[in-house]
Amino acid sequence: MTAPVIRVKVPATSANLGSGFDSLGMALSLYNVFCVTDLLPKGEFRSDVIGEGARELTDAGANLVIQSYIAACRTWNVEEKGFCILSHNVIPLCRGLGSSAGAVVAGVLIADSLCRVGAPEAELLRVMTTIEGHPDNVAPCYLGGMTVSAWDGGELRYVRFQSLPSDMHVVVAVPDVRVRTKDAREALPNSVEFGDAVFNLGRAALLTAAWATGKWELLSWGMDDRLHQQYRARLFPGGDVIMDRVRDIPGCLGVAISGSGPSVIALVRGKPRRVAEAMCATFSEYGVDSLFFVLEGNAGGARIDRSGV
Amino acid sequence: MTAPVIRVKVPATSANLGSGFDSLGMALSLYNVFCVTDLLPKGEFRSDVIGEGARELTDAGANLVIQSYIAACRTWNVEEKGFCILSHNVIPLCRGLGSSAGAVVAGVLIADSLCRVGAPEAELLRVMTTIEGHPDNVAPCYLGGMTVSAWDGGELRYVRFQSLPSDMHVVVAVPDVRVRTKDAREALPNSVEFGDAVFNLGRAALLTAAWATGKWELLSWGMDDRLHQQYRARLFPGGDVIMDRVRDIPGCLGVAISGSGPSVIALVRGKPRRVAEAMCATFSEYGVDSLFFVLEGNAGGARIDRSGV
Repeated sequence: MTAPVIRVKVPATSANLGSGFDSLGMALSLYNVFCVTDLLPKGEFRSDVIGEGARELTDAGANLVIQSYIAACRTWNVEEKGFCILSHNVIPLCRGLGSSAGAVVAGVLIADSLCRVGAPEAELLRVMTTIEGHPDNVAPCYLGGMTVSAWDGGELRYVRFQSLPSDMHVVVAVPDVRVRTKDAREALPNSVEFGDAVFNLGRAALLTAAWATGKWELLSWGMDDRLHQQYRARLFPGGDVIMDRVRDIPGCLGVAISGSGPSVIALVRGKPRRVAEAMCATFSEYGVDSLFFVLEGNAGGARIDRSGV
Repeated sequence: MTAPVIRVKVPATSANLGSGFDSLGMALSLYNVFCVTDLLPKGEFRSDVIGEGARELTDAGANLVIQSYIAACRTWNVEEKGFCILSHNVIPLCRGLGSSAGAVVAGVLIADSLCRVGAPEAELLRVMTTIEGHPDNVAPCYLGGMTVSAWDGGELRYVRFQSLPSDMHVVVAVPDVRVRTKDAREALPNSVEFGDAVFNLGRAALLTAAWATGKWELLSWGMDDRLHQQYRARLFPGGDVIMDRVRDIPGCLGVAISGSGPSVIALVRGKPRRVAEAMCATFSEYGVDSLFFVLEGNAGGARIDRSGV
């Protein structure tokens, strides 16, 4: 096989982080890699998938990277060159780890590169957010690190913070059940107590302040939530107890449902194994297999390499 | 008159700043000064007031500095030495500029100093917050600058950020009407739309990120609010139009009701006069006299000086 025309590597992401619903997110050191291997005539696409989703993601027309590429090309009014794409998927699907956001980011970056648009960072993120529908996964996926983002349906504002220190581990437990984002959205109430709204805004501000200053002892307070996790925890086995089981393990600074679940993320200073095992033991107790990742808190954003186009 | 025994200088503060209800606050370069002039036997207090509230704040027993001093002494179980106190009040009363928080901060600092408690910063703030009932004014009053704070009724967490740049002016328009904090609280709804809660937490996180990074162009988005200002704006003449009147004036980066109102605060880069005049003209149009302050965005926190105790 010859060198790929374009190679894009995108990180998994964890959005919300408790308090920061639809606003805060972080990149995780777990990557999908998409290789555009050959160019094809306009409108023709072929897709191969290795790894996660290899059996179900067979239809090129339904491939989210290709769909996002086409949407970006149309936004920028450039010719939709066809291509063959090989996806090496490592990020588990439908588990709240941003695999679809990664596909959107990859598709937009491929469009930018293949069609020589050269869009600036803010425009790339605006297009990614428009396709994805919210910015809290695409922002950390593209930028890396930890991001605060807000979107009004047209315009976007965002700030990126540096990564976590090297002795901070990100433990992600992934149960063998799926939660559809649509179901997770529908589980949320239409209205909330005024005091709960105030609670979350204060904690989201505190979490942002912790990121900005490196005061990691504030993560526990900053990741606390009263808006959404109590509803989403009911959508997967063990969800209503797992966070309480690990919160007080030494070194565990904060724990949250990752995105809309069912994965659970914990930030751990020191040895992460006990937290990881307690999470998987809880899933097991509720009859669900799970796996865990211990990731470094220094994940970079999406990277694109071109050769010979 | 001999030199005062203790002299405490406390800044005005502006809490909420739009999105950050009960969480965000900033110190303003407008100060009340309290001088403990003489010591008296335990439980005896005399109070004189010059300036704001001189005619109404005559009862030493109802003086909030003295009440807070006594509360702090009881918290720390130290003897409540009596004293004479002379208050030089510049901060307008009941206008959302933190005059009562300033009195609480002063009373606690006097107790700490006069009774040689030597409490650390976090303990001082905890006692101040317990007396005041919420941290968003006492934190910036004591610490200076801009603060994020959260309180669970017992424990407190907070982060202080550096001040605004020297060319950023803080314009505060103060109408000649009062809003009681109690009425301002009662004007708020019991529940809010889920989407509005999410809106505010994202904007409060963005405002915190703007403070942390100096990305002042984010202030406008970061200070936007859907939780409380629409209710409180109805409590004073012109409240429902004044922010829209100044929002788009060149240099105006953000505008909000200060605390629970009725003062209005704008952060202005460049010449502040046009914003100040537009705010006062609006109050005038609605039949209310007003005055304005143009303050620097570099206010320090409370300062205490002792001599000869």
